[in-house]
Amino acid sequence: MVIQAEATTPSAILDRASLLLDAFDGPGRLTLAQIVRRTGLPRSSAHRMLERLVQLRWLRREGRDYELGIRLMELGSLAVHQDRLHRAAMPFLHELHRVTGFVVHLAVLDGPDVVYLDKIAGDLAVAVPTRVGGRRPAHCTAVGKAILAYSDERRVAEVVTGQAGTRTRYSISTRAQLDAELNKVRAHGIAVEREESLPGFGCIAAPIGDLGESAVAAVSVCGPVDRMLFDHRLTAPIRTTALNIWRHVDDGRVRVHPTLQQHPRPLGVGPASRMDADRRAPRYA
Amino acid sequence: MVIQAEATTPSAILDRASLLLDAFDGPGRLTLAQIVRRTGLPRSSAHRMLERLVQLRWLRREGRDYELGIRLMELGSLAVHQDRLHRAAMPFLHELHRVTGFVVHLAVLDGPDVVYLDKIAGDLAVAVPTRVGGRRPAHCTAVGKAILAYSDERRVAEVVTGQAGTRTRYSISTRAQLDAELNKVRAHGIAVEREESLPGFGCIAAPIGDLGESAVAAVSVCGPVDRMLFDHRLTAPIRTTALNIWRHVDDGRVRVHPTLQQHPRPLGVGPASRMDADRRAPRYA
Repeated sequence: MVIQAEATTPSAILDRASLLLDAFDGPGRLTLAQIVRRTGLPRSSAHRMLERLVQLRWLRREGRDYELGIRLMELGSLAVHQDRLHRAAMPFLHELHRVTGFVVHLAVLDGPDVVYLDKIAGDLAVAVPTRVGGRRPAHCTAVGKAILAYSDERRVAEVVTGQAGTRTRYSISTRAQLDAELNKVRAHGIAVEREESLPGFGCIAAPIGDLGESAVAAVSVCGPVDRMLFDHRLTAPIRTTALNIWRHVDDGRVRVHPTLQQHPRPLGVGPASRMDADRRAPRYA
Repeated sequence: MVIQAEATTPSAILDRASLLLDAFDGPGRLTLAQIVRRTGLPRSSAHRMLERLVQLRWLRREGRDYELGIRLMELGSLAVHQDRLHRAAMPFLHELHRVTGFVVHLAVLDGPDVVYLDKIAGDLAVAVPTRVGGRRPAHCTAVGKAILAYSDERRVAEVVTGQAGTRTRYSISTRAQLDAELNKVRAHGIAVEREESLPGFGCIAAPIGDLGESAVAAVSVCGPVDRMLFDHRLTAPIRTTALNIWRHVDDGRVRVHPTLQQHPRPLGVGPASRMDADRRAPRYA
């Protein structure tokens, strides 16, 4: 009876709905039996909820198979579209793609992963298997390193290094490697990744945000590693894009980009390092 | 007491959650007070559910404002990505974009609207304000007309014509206009739209599916109306794309494209019209 009561509180129902939808992460189409196995929910309860989710178009049913439905596509798209950062970024991302010809990503940190808010891809769209709403381990990506370098220790600690967390033989696999890499990012204001996420491909990313406090996102350019220029010819337009995006995020106040003009030092780096960084990479536009 | 009991059945909770999330369609950020006004839900119940949805990351909260959350981005993206039609279409959509240089859309019909499953945009991305997961009135779009021409009467009847359903002064505004237009689509196997959805822009679409039964989707090319060629130079690659996508949809059986090779006539059109169609537009590839 306690279980029954628990299962019908609004929170418990929402948890069950979430569990049901999460079951589709991976396989795609599932029968009722498969869903029951994956979620551990009672069959009759799962069936009733699935049928309601079909009516709400969060799921759709074809014969005995359930799939994620069109209402989720719409809500997901709205979530991206209404994101103020994404809205501010869009024109600058397209411009960066036009100028470089490479794949452009906008990403945020979520737990130990980055989640992509946008991808402007052109001809390389299929070769680079990222997607809007998709996630990758943060420490294997340039966008992830760019954000982590300007995040507090708690967020860095969430990153799972070690064999399970790597994607290629070049991926960062220890916490010591990660710390060294993040120091490099702080020194240059730019994160680089060479075949650490995808064989044959590399990325260069710049953090977005008030870097005196923390990065809220990052923008990157990604392409075949042997065709990318890992110097100012690519880093300059990426930095500029990051600055422009942050200046245009509409949160009700006019921004002056603080990294350049207000804060004497980025968080976690002493004044001397900051001056080093300025000396090494002063060309923002 | 009856209301209380009703409100705690799983279905009622799911309906409430759906109502809560739907409230964000339009405004984006909402306070609790605004959500209560928009949904009509009791304040305390709405608040409890919102906080749970924040914990589940379907929503996020910044101060007093709620917004759609990152888990919806992920589920929405999964829904698109797992869609078998979309998966089959991706390489062909990119090829069509590469060949034409225009914006390429893949869309399905949902009630009176089309919903976009993909958009390959290039330089015109910002000028054409469609988005994956977004919807438009079907009869104002080339993709919508392409699908409706090969749908049963029930689906055509769902389309809302009249002033409320139009988007520009060129939009179809009566059922008679729509019927005439759909007959043209059936005769040519191609749907055209000139500034009916967006001033200055036009689209050409081809239906995807077993057209002897019904279209399941459509693919279109969209660009500045004065730069588009409304003849075989554009229609041929669009048709070819539609055929290729349908051939590659993986539903466990090998397809031979039925429009070209198996069915003596498309549904709703007599053999004579079919021959007319063939005479007028026989160049598929």
